[in-house]
Amino acid sequence: MKKKVLKFGGTSVGSIERIMHAAEIVKKEHSLGNQIIVVVSAMSGKTNELISLSDSISKKFNKRELDVLLSSGEQVTSSLMAGALTSAGVKSKSWMSWQIPIFTSGEHANARIENINVKNINAYLSEGGVAVIPGFQGVSKSGDINTIGRGGSDATAVAIAKIFNTDSCEIYTDVDGVYSTDPNKIPVAKKIDKISYEEMLELSSLGAKVMQSSAVQTAMIHDIPIQVRSTFTARQGTEISNQGNIDYTKIVTGVAYSKDDAKITLIGVLDKPGIAADIFEPLGKNQINIDMVIQTISPDGKTTDITFTIKRNDFKKTLDTLNSNKKIKFKNLNHNDKVSKISVVGAGMVTTPGVTFKMFRALADENINILAISTSEIKISVIINENDTLKAVKKLHTIFDLD
Amino acid sequence: MKKKVLKFGGTSVGSIERIMHAAEIVKKEHSLGNQIIVVVSAMSGKTNELISLSDSISKKFNKRELDVLLSSGEQVTSSLMAGALTSAGVKSKSWMSWQIPIFTSGEHANARIENINVKNINAYLSEGGVAVIPGFQGVSKSGDINTIGRGGSDATAVAIAKIFNTDSCEIYTDVDGVYSTDPNKIPVAKKIDKISYEEMLELSSLGAKVMQSSAVQTAMIHDIPIQVRSTFTARQGTEISNQGNIDYTKIVTGVAYSKDDAKITLIGVLDKPGIAADIFEPLGKNQINIDMVIQTISPDGKTTDITFTIKRNDFKKTLDTLNSNKKIKFKNLNHNDKVSKISVVGAGMVTTPGVTFKMFRALADENINILAISTSEIKISVIINENDTLKAVKKLHTIFDLD
Repeated sequence: MKKKVLKFGGTSVGSIERIMHAAEIVKKEHSLGNQIIVVVSAMSGKTNELISLSDSISKKFNKRELDVLLSSGEQVTSSLMAGALTSAGVKSKSWMSWQIPIFTSGEHANARIENINVKNINAYLSEGGVAVIPGFQGVSKSGDINTIGRGGSDATAVAIAKIFNTDSCEIYTDVDGVYSTDPNKIPVAKKIDKISYEEMLELSSLGAKVMQSSAVQTAMIHDIPIQVRSTFTARQGTEISNQGNIDYTKIVTGVAYSKDDAKITLIGVLDKPGIAADIFEPLGKNQINIDMVIQTISPDGKTTDITFTIKRNDFKKTLDTLNSNKKIKFKNLNHNDKVSKISVVGAGMVTTPGVTFKMFRALADENINILAISTSEIKISVIINENDTLKAVKKLHTIFDLD
Repeated sequence: MKKKVLKFGGTSVGSIERIMHAAEIVKKEHSLGNQIIVVVSAMSGKTNELISLSDSISKKFNKRELDVLLSSGEQVTSSLMAGALTSAGVKSKSWMSWQIPIFTSGEHANARIENINVKNINAYLSEGGVAVIPGFQGVSKSGDINTIGRGGSDATAVAIAKIFNTDSCEIYTDVDGVYSTDPNKIPVAKKIDKISYEEMLELSSLGAKVMQSSAVQTAMIHDIPIQVRSTFTARQGTEISNQGNIDYTKIVTGVAYSKDDAKITLIGVLDKPGIAADIFEPLGKNQINIDMVIQTISPDGKTTDITFTIKRNDFKKTLDTLNSNKKIKFKNLNHNDKVSKISVVGAGMVTTPGVTFKMFRALADENINILAISTSEIKISVIINENDTLKAVKKLHTIFDLD
């Protein structure tokens, strides 16, 4: 007998048929003698629908009330799932976060799970019941409803795995698992059987939407292995776990890419202490997210060139903010709003020299111009022209033996 | 300064525009210095939508989970209303039933409000805040979500008026008030300015859908005056209150009718103690609602004729149940599945003789055949052929001076 958390994402509970299908998966796991806690997201599209209702009232809709509003989405799915399980002959009950309670702290729309009362649910599990819990929410000590950010049902699942000390945490989603690159665009992409938390974090932040990053971080801190698998196929999924559990036969685990990027270079910025802060502080205040930042020294030694990337839809706002910034002086501003970022990620890189060189050589062989480079211990990212994106991903996927 | 409950029904909060309009009504009442508790229904159509989701899983969907599911409808409206008020500059907060709490007892889908904790909400009202509360629900002592039956938001409003001892209870709806008969069918129908609880109950049970009957009953028991008024016009509505407050210049207050009825007569039933129970018990077990029951003695004195009416869509089931009932014997079974019930209602009847005669004469003058009669202190109902419905209502409306 094992104690398990099974989490079903929005598309996995996106219709009555899918909820009933997910209930069958739960029923099967339960019939094997396991103790099961189910965590559900809102039906796909529901959260956006509720946000658009509040937006129609005001773009600055009260945050406390927005949390009350949004939390209803998972409430609906929880009751439907518990009802579907009951109808399928499985003893089951939904538990709203205030009924458990799941205690959260922090501000509305961005709270953290602090603690979960395990007593009543554990008693129910011992009686053979399946507990169904809405993801994405909790209650504050003062009794308000809080939500924990988009994709927060993953964080709920990991928190439950941690606090209930379950044997596994299984994330059911609409993909088979984590892939070496986007399988929709690169048909030779391969499903990864095992991946480390760190690699998963790099891939998530680079656009692989399999799991919410902060949930992966929590799992990493508490060493909770996660299984990502498809609700719709019986295929083995991807296990996300500690690096030590993984046998690295390949240097690179995956190739990720993000499009809709833009690159800006300030040439000949007068170099002085605090210049980076002077450039980036006004951008942050305007809600512009900076991705890569690269600084080089100009030949004259007194000025510096600063390159950074942003999302394309922030492009105009960024140029306006830079041009109206009285605190900074620069000779020239280069920009390119049609770039993409390609990253190779792999825990095996740390111990393998020459990956960087191999990557640059491969791109050169394809006549792909590298516009900027940024590296971390387990990742190398380059900015290239957007037109070259797929060509670059395919080439890197091949030369790092991922096909 | 007055303390008021304002309740908005489903059509009054049926869209974002309508919620914002209702919020303006609340804002105006609040700006006059009143303490306001708002009770909201689910957006119109929402409850049916949720029920159809549960029905798709199972027609016997778990009742506990159905309550969790349905209660989300009013949760959504409460948060949108509180958010709309905040956006309109009114201090406001939603309170889910477990946050107050509103304690209920009884079974799922059909619970009763037992008690409401007034402390925190009263403190909030004193600080000038508007409390927004979802109708139709509460929590049991064991912490489960309960709902209190269709139309239950009226019952919530009346319970709040009672327990918070408010100065008024105002039901905002999509009609101007209570009418002397259906204004959509009989254009001369008049809005009633004041009506007694008893008359309202008779009219409600006869199809006037202005307010839920059990809410009117509770208001009657605790002598809580209710104002019914339109969310969409500024017209004065109808006050429902104690008979003593009403000056009866008219004998009859209103003429109600229900269609889709069917009449069944068992002729020559062997009369013995318990025969009525033997007939009606199996019908009740089959979820068939019996409306009027009339029993007469046959000429031979040993048998009796029993006539009763039911809803037309129970007609076939009723015949089947009667024909397979081994406990009863009868000579013949008459039936007519195209009848309607016309009722004249008026507290003034009690002290005015001759109303019955006047009614029967008027129908005879129109060549309308009376198939069955049933009377109470403040009501006379007759069953007639459905084709005669509007002709009968118009005639009675005229002769009782309601035009």
